[in-house]
Amino acid sequence: MPQRLKEIGEKAKAAEPQLRTLGAAQKDRALLKAADMLVSHTQELLKANAADLEQASANGMKPALLDRLRLNPERIGQMAQGLSQIAQMADPIGEVLHMGKRPNGLLIGQQRVPLGVIGIIYESRPNVTADAFGLCFKAGNAVILKGGSDAIHSNIAIAKALRAALAECEVTPDAIQLIEDTDRAATEELMRMNDYVDVLIPRGGAGLIRSVVENSKIPVIETGTGNCHIYVDEYADISMAVDIIFNAKTQRIGVCNACESLVVHEKIKDALLPVLQKKLSEKQVELRGDAAVCGVIAGVKPATEEDWGTEYLDYILSIKTVSSLEEAIAHINRYNTGHSEAIITQNYEHAQRFLNEIDAAAVYVNASTRFTDGYEFGFGAEIGISTQKLHARGPMGLRALTSTKYIIYGNGQIRP
Amino acid sequence: MPQRLKEIGEKAKAAEPQLRTLGAAQKDRALLKAADMLVSHTQELLKANAADLEQASANGMKPALLDRLRLNPERIGQMAQGLSQIAQMADPIGEVLHMGKRPNGLLIGQQRVPLGVIGIIYESRPNVTADAFGLCFKAGNAVILKGGSDAIHSNIAIAKALRAALAECEVTPDAIQLIEDTDRAATEELMRMNDYVDVLIPRGGAGLIRSVVENSKIPVIETGTGNCHIYVDEYADISMAVDIIFNAKTQRIGVCNACESLVVHEKIKDALLPVLQKKLSEKQVELRGDAAVCGVIAGVKPATEEDWGTEYLDYILSIKTVSSLEEAIAHINRYNTGHSEAIITQNYEHAQRFLNEIDAAAVYVNASTRFTDGYEFGFGAEIGISTQKLHARGPMGLRALTSTKYIIYGNGQIRP
Repeated sequence: MPQRLKEIGEKAKAAEPQLRTLGAAQKDRALLKAADMLVSHTQELLKANAADLEQASANGMKPALLDRLRLNPERIGQMAQGLSQIAQMADPIGEVLHMGKRPNGLLIGQQRVPLGVIGIIYESRPNVTADAFGLCFKAGNAVILKGGSDAIHSNIAIAKALRAALAECEVTPDAIQLIEDTDRAATEELMRMNDYVDVLIPRGGAGLIRSVVENSKIPVIETGTGNCHIYVDEYADISMAVDIIFNAKTQRIGVCNACESLVVHEKIKDALLPVLQKKLSEKQVELRGDAAVCGVIAGVKPATEEDWGTEYLDYILSIKTVSSLEEAIAHINRYNTGHSEAIITQNYEHAQRFLNEIDAAAVYVNASTRFTDGYEFGFGAEIGISTQKLHARGPMGLRALTSTKYIIYGNGQIRP
Repeated sequence: MPQRLKEIGEKAKAAEPQLRTLGAAQKDRALLKAADMLVSHTQELLKANAADLEQASANGMKPALLDRLRLNPERIGQMAQGLSQIAQMADPIGEVLHMGKRPNGLLIGQQRVPLGVIGIIYESRPNVTADAFGLCFKAGNAVILKGGSDAIHSNIAIAKALRAALAECEVTPDAIQLIEDTDRAATEELMRMNDYVDVLIPRGGAGLIRSVVENSKIPVIETGTGNCHIYVDEYADISMAVDIIFNAKTQRIGVCNACESLVVHEKIKDALLPVLQKKLSEKQVELRGDAAVCGVIAGVKPATEEDWGTEYLDYILSIKTVSSLEEAIAHINRYNTGHSEAIITQNYEHAQRFLNEIDAAAVYVNASTRFTDGYEFGFGAEIGISTQKLHARGPMGLRALTSTKYIIYGNGQIRP
């Protein structure tokens, strides 16, 4: 391992004992100071960001990506506000989940503790630097950040401001460390830092996530791709179905909880599809359907096998017809990515069966898949949406960044 | 991937939908039938086990290991009893951990669901075949087992009996599948079956666990090695300390929650060590100490750096002196394996600091580390003791073999 990364790992480990025992008041004071520091460093942040933007432009980065990379006073204010909001959230650390006395008198409790050291690998949005730090820190963890090379100057400036805030509050600045090497080798080394990092969370596109899952020797929490389905049951309210599909498909297209695929019961297709097509045409949504769909409405491209498994993140919707609830559930469980799935139905038994039998982080009856989100679920800010089953599933707030330990109060007990 | 393993993976996936929705009554009936089936197949099991024993003997297996491999009617009865006990345990699946209404009327709950497909890699004890199946099955999972080659005939016979019991109860026999290939290549392939297996749990010695953690592409729950410490504070009750250390060191030496290392405050060493040495000599425990220890009692081997990090699993105890609680905590956090650590003290503040600052799955005040165990903690049978921080930490009962999903009841909600 390169010396520079080894040092980062050792500093993170050295920060753990202080972070493990920091009180909520001190953590919140440091978060508010960090928020202030971002705002008071606006000029430095903008200057660093300008260097990133200039280089990215010169490298031919597309306008949409340039926009994700761009900082302005408003966006810096939003980062600061994000940290202030995290300061308002309840401290998860120290909570005793349950505690009870055993017949031998041992009092055994399970207490929430930090995970330790969290690694975050992300792409070009510099705001992740502040957001990820805030959540990891509030949950008592040290964080090692590896951002995209496009945002390196911005990330360095943000991390510097955050570290200065911690130091002012007598908290070790090593609670946040940024890997400044921008090459791929540094990312690969980070994925092998088992001795220093307890968990890796990749934040970004499907390619990044797959690469981390496949190459990391550290446990990974897999976030995000969402090939989300809505199943319109034969007993659906058509007007509700159209509203929900329109919302889930078009309210924001580039997000993981947007609807990508529709499954329609054959008995309702004739009534639903023409109305739906008209509504979706308001946003020029391209439809790709199976033969039955193409038989009902015109202007639909034939869907291929590949369509069923594709997360478009675009104004495109695939549509599959089925002849039963069972067929719908089997299709969704085969092609989904374990994110968010919905049924539209007025039938009680079908609703319950869908909830029980669909294998996904969030399963909805009669609501838009777009609600799978930390704020919408009531946890506040989130570090991502887990699509795996281990440790955390669904929107991950502060609790997902914690572990537990057993604490046992005895008075001399020995095992017979 | 070899065709045979691919088929096993596909069959496990195909079993998931049925297992996900099996009711507790049907699972318990199948577990009781499986218990009966083991007993009624006693002759077949003993015959298969005799073949394993004969081959192991011919290969020069040591008596202690031969004993672990051996089945007899009593041990078969214990396996059956284990399954019956699992049938008595409450079904974790379906439990709603919390549920509440959001301002927009969405009713959002988090419900416990099976993990899916669990892989278990273990060594020569054939009883793991039945125990692991029982726990995984009760939690609604399919299990793929890869046991040690020494026990292959026994494992095949046990799995066959269990599968027959499931079939009789109209449960898919593919809820349990045994990989019959005994070569290392099969284990390596299993560790790459991401598409089929949700989590791998290695059960066995440190070498096996390390190899799985390093090579698996599937998330792993790390179980077990325990370099457990007892810290005798300057305010300890000496007689309690001696009783607890004697128990934790000698009550059973080959287990992960046995005490391997003692940390002693220098102010109590003169009073403690002679009494302790006398007591431990009843079991001929070899002591390895630092210079201060060697200065107090005779016949102590000087401890090396290696001793502080060694899990002996033997009648050996290392002893380190410290001059403060802080030094004790730092030493333990440096050398422990995150398993079980204890302080012996009558000082309130020291007890609380030790509980807060030690980083381990189980932290004790005034009790033996030997209590870290599913039965002792009140969960019943366990699949192992997790020494990692992700997903499950400490003794893992049925709940550690589950995940959750969000279930959301709406009435037409869309995201504004």
